[in-house]
Amino acid sequence: MDLREKTVNSKKIYKGKIVNLRLDEVELPNGKFSKREIVEHNGAVAIVPYYKNKVIMVEQFRKATEEILLEIPAGKIEKGEDLVESAKRELEEEIGYQPANLKWLCKAYTSPGFTNETIDIYLATELVRTKQNTDEDEFINIRQFDISAVGEMMAKGEFRDAKTIIGLQYLLADLKEG
Amino acid sequence: MDLREKTVNSKKIYKGKIVNLRLDEVELPNGKFSKREIVEHNGAVAIVPYYKNKVIMVEQFRKATEEILLEIPAGKIEKGEDLVESAKRELEEEIGYQPANLKWLCKAYTSPGFTNETIDIYLATELVRTKQNTDEDEFINIRQFDISAVGEMMAKGEFRDAKTIIGLQYLLADLKEG
Repeated sequence: MDLREKTVNSKKIYKGKIVNLRLDEVELPNGKFSKREIVEHNGAVAIVPYYKNKVIMVEQFRKATEEILLEIPAGKIEKGEDLVESAKRELEEEIGYQPANLKWLCKAYTSPGFTNETIDIYLATELVRTKQNTDEDEFINIRQFDISAVGEMMAKGEFRDAKTIIGLQYLLADLKEG
Repeated sequence: MDLREKTVNSKKIYKGKIVNLRLDEVELPNGKFSKREIVEHNGAVAIVPYYKNKVIMVEQFRKATEEILLEIPAGKIEKGEDLVESAKRELEEEIGYQPANLKWLCKAYTSPGFTNETIDIYLATELVRTKQNTDEDEFINIRQFDISAVGEMMAKGEFRDAKTIIGLQYLLADLKEG
């Protein structure tokens, strides 16, 4: 069966700073019609900073969730930036390190049911200290965790942020492979 | 530092079937003000169906991404449903199995920078065949993969959907632990 849906109409609802919202009318594979609410997003990068058996993470209040979350450093891709530039910039801005070694892990749609947002996740090792330089509306606490603690928290399902779980799972699997 | 942001104004922009959009004005920890675009979502569940060394997945066209994606079965929580009911229902609807054994793996925010959507991910084993029964606007192909192929695809970063990567990584780690 051809699973694709054809757009028959598309209506812009909101144009924002981080997201746009549009409503598409589609023709389904069975010839019927349906609507799809779509949140447009420019894409993001996230980085697992791993150095001397420690993972460096950030604590950040997330208005959408009304919670302070523990996450790996991440951020939106800026206009004209390539993915690696973006990952290096976010790492330096959020925790004040440059990576001597940056390895791509995966590219994931965060929630393909309603948004085209992708996140490219990297592993950063051999970190060189520079200077933290957060955006003016960004307030974060830096936290460091031993890899053994990360493994235990993962097994218990204690991490709450998807990109963070993915990045740390790749790191844990990598270390197990040796 | 207290990282929390106080809501000083909140404006509803769109009320939809899957998502709502609102724009919050917040007071930042430094006393300045900023805006937060927030996509409200009711939450979802996803299930890794693992049986006889095979993972059962679904291929589905995702309008937001304009791609056919390979994903673990998943869906929105319906009104009044608890998480386990929701997981069992989605598993049966999408692939036609009931799980004799359902293990919770984690709860993750899919993209906390702009949405409150959470996804609870389960591992389903000891599957009992029933009957697939998809929603009327849902068209999917069922695919089965040997766990060894899943491991290779994961190492190469070939999975493209966040919940799928998380669920499969938990399974792979579990099997490695023995």
